[in-house]
Amino acid sequence: MANDKFVSQIADIEEDFPRWYTDVVVKTKLVDYGPVKGTMVIRPYGYAIWENIQREIDARFKKAGVENAYFPLLIPMSFMTKEAEHVEGFAPEVAVVTHAGGAKLEEPLVIRPTSETIIGHMMGKWVESWRDLPLRMNQWCNVMRWEKTTRPFLRTSEFLWQEGHSVYATGEEAEAETQDMLHLYEEFAKNVLCMPVLVGRKTEKEKFAGAVATYGMEAMMHDGKSLQAGTTHYMGQNFAKAFGVQFTDKDGALKYGYTMSYGVSTRLIGALIMTHGDQRGLILPPPVAPVQVVIVPIAQKKEGVLEACNALCEALKGEGVRAKVDDSDNSPGWKFNEWEMKGVPVRIELGPRDIEGGKMLLFRRDTCEKCEAALGDTACVKALLNSISRDLYGRAKARMDERIVGANTLGELLDGVNGGNFVRAGWCGERACEDKVKEFAQATARVLDETNDMPVCVCCGKRAKHTVFFARAY
Amino acid sequence: MANDKFVSQIADIEEDFPRWYTDVVVKTKLVDYGPVKGTMVIRPYGYAIWENIQREIDARFKKAGVENAYFPLLIPMSFMTKEAEHVEGFAPEVAVVTHAGGAKLEEPLVIRPTSETIIGHMMGKWVESWRDLPLRMNQWCNVMRWEKTTRPFLRTSEFLWQEGHSVYATGEEAEAETQDMLHLYEEFAKNVLCMPVLVGRKTEKEKFAGAVATYGMEAMMHDGKSLQAGTTHYMGQNFAKAFGVQFTDKDGALKYGYTMSYGVSTRLIGALIMTHGDQRGLILPPPVAPVQVVIVPIAQKKEGVLEACNALCEALKGEGVRAKVDDSDNSPGWKFNEWEMKGVPVRIELGPRDIEGGKMLLFRRDTCEKCEAALGDTACVKALLNSISRDLYGRAKARMDERIVGANTLGELLDGVNGGNFVRAGWCGERACEDKVKEFAQATARVLDETNDMPVCVCCGKRAKHTVFFARAY
Repeated sequence: MANDKFVSQIADIEEDFPRWYTDVVVKTKLVDYGPVKGTMVIRPYGYAIWENIQREIDARFKKAGVENAYFPLLIPMSFMTKEAEHVEGFAPEVAVVTHAGGAKLEEPLVIRPTSETIIGHMMGKWVESWRDLPLRMNQWCNVMRWEKTTRPFLRTSEFLWQEGHSVYATGEEAEAETQDMLHLYEEFAKNVLCMPVLVGRKTEKEKFAGAVATYGMEAMMHDGKSLQAGTTHYMGQNFAKAFGVQFTDKDGALKYGYTMSYGVSTRLIGALIMTHGDQRGLILPPPVAPVQVVIVPIAQKKEGVLEACNALCEALKGEGVRAKVDDSDNSPGWKFNEWEMKGVPVRIELGPRDIEGGKMLLFRRDTCEKCEAALGDTACVKALLNSISRDLYGRAKARMDERIVGANTLGELLDGVNGGNFVRAGWCGERACEDKVKEFAQATARVLDETNDMPVCVCCGKRAKHTVFFARAY
Repeated sequence: MANDKFVSQIADIEEDFPRWYTDVVVKTKLVDYGPVKGTMVIRPYGYAIWENIQREIDARFKKAGVENAYFPLLIPMSFMTKEAEHVEGFAPEVAVVTHAGGAKLEEPLVIRPTSETIIGHMMGKWVESWRDLPLRMNQWCNVMRWEKTTRPFLRTSEFLWQEGHSVYATGEEAEAETQDMLHLYEEFAKNVLCMPVLVGRKTEKEKFAGAVATYGMEAMMHDGKSLQAGTTHYMGQNFAKAFGVQFTDKDGALKYGYTMSYGVSTRLIGALIMTHGDQRGLILPPPVAPVQVVIVPIAQKKEGVLEACNALCEALKGEGVRAKVDDSDNSPGWKFNEWEMKGVPVRIELGPRDIEGGKMLLFRRDTCEKCEAALGDTACVKALLNSISRDLYGRAKARMDERIVGANTLGELLDGVNGGNFVRAGWCGERACEDKVKEFAQATARVLDETNDMPVCVCCGKRAKHTVFFARAY
């Protein structure tokens, strides 16, 4: 009964994937809708995932020598206009503060949609000599982009992210960091989110407003659409010139620096949900799951059961496993359903007979397989968590690989994306052809493929300059 | 030479303490001024202190069972008016978003000055039954209060903080948590910031807008003024009624919950600077110092010196000490001055003769004493860090205790605060007398003293209801 009720609360993942997504994120209490249109409240179960993501990424940044800082939320409107492409890209979506402290402001202030401008301004103050370079900083903060259509985690007017910003003496160094951070993200996606990604350069049309080049990592969602899960940008001297980031080089000459930036956001939570989830709900990758192991007592009122569950829980915690005993009044069946919906990687069932037999029952959420282990064998539980991580990645990778198809014509490209695939196709490099693909197949160029092996443009038939991964995208 | 230059950059701490403070925070690169008036940029050295503060507090919250979440930055203006005292207190200092996405908004939105209203609104959605209570959440975020006079860390239009919010079924439980969190802060101040505080209830005049009761912790700064370093608030049913936070109790009746909140902010960084600093600059408490031990090589170009320094640094890091080798081109004297100004608790000097003799020279920043230890004796370094923490607290505590004086008349009270003291005095409980003290001595009631032993009101001479700690305050 409880079982049926649970499943029926979530839309069918194959029939209505968008509805499945919103059902799952709300019903598992990851998130709720805020009172202002397009805003979200990240509830404790969702925020705990974000904390795990932050910890993993932040450790990688610190190891790479990047330092955290914090820059103001409010940016003078005039800053936005200093870089021509930047203002064109972001002005339409900013939120504007016009009044504060009971009075009208002399100059309107925008809530940061991203911080290249204000950080450029401060770098201009701080950088004087080649000795000050490179300057590499990151901030964890909230940003605001007023969006018309919103969905929790995927696109909301306010979201949380990190934005890293560096200035180097040479373009080569700044470009190298743009690549390095892209690969840091790729490694993180693989090992922490168990999520395969495609990485590569974006087209001019898809690049960041004000960048010389943008690189992205794209992940394939359950429905075959692509989700941009992180980007890095090489700015050349665009922002350095706009904000006077100049330094005296070793040769005594005054030169402009070269800047780059990179960011990932709470969107990653949406990405992992739509990569791994199934009909029952969430499947959380062990490295970010707030609860990695839930212990469900069977006949919990029988003597010794709760004690055994708690002892096992403490042993697991002692080994660094995020474990929890569900000793609520609900039935075991209800608990099974709830924790399956919430995507906890491993469930341990423990009752009087198990305790007597010195064993425990392990259930893995990803495959719904069960196996037995010796009671208290924490090494076995840890090994199972590792297997789940590896298998989650392996299955997602195999699915993505299967669903990358080639196309030589617009018709083939349309068939490909209609079938829920990423489509590899040649492209002449002209904006007109890129626009045509969008119009004809509602697909965009996600990233360029370095294996540049498609000979002709899928649209105009001329010689291809690039091979592109086209896909429909979130 | 370098020595002289350094000291002269900082105003005299006894002659011009406000200037000393701004000199120190800017020159040590803790902070810089943002482009918008009243905003600050927290630079990496300052942000690292905040990260250490966050880690310590967050661990205490998690241990206490509080979960982190994230609520939206923007609050509908109409929410602010639902609690009458709250809007009166905060409306004058809010920043208002009137336009977004290229259009005028139907309803103006305020940037959160604090989140009781929006969290009350969400709790109203989430809480249904006594089973949902207590609900205890915290968020780490930025808030905005438009202030006329600002100073980095102490009072800025935007600052970072944590705000915890709980709803309970009974007033007793909510009041108990208000006390528990106050004592959590007190313990944190003592053991992490090495900072003694006075804790107690605030007067009606000084309480939070919308609270039934506010409790504060107050710290004594170098100049004898008080700094409010954290507050907890018991709201009774004020916000629950304003936002419909109702639950069905065990008896089947629909009841309003009881809420409370608590917060500390980046102001704590200002507090620790003004508690421990001296003429040379910062003195950072070891538990939050970004660099706890700096190793300065002597004759660093001599063979084996840098290697020995790096080996020592790695050994210290392996023991969990935040250590760093300064292998820059600057002279040892320059390095000594810089790291003293930056408040690093322990400096280790290591040169060819030390290495040959198997020893190292330790310098402790707080007392400027030197001692020798066996090269590589990490236990000795850790013990020294612990001694410094203990002594910093001990000295600050002794200074505060010395500078708490009693007063029976307004004249004595004025003399007391003029002398840089906290003044204990009786108070009849009337607002008029509290206002008179402010007018006469520019001192405010910081907290009530539970040792209620002063018989008459310092102002009107009538029977005292409370004993109050009066002080001038930041």
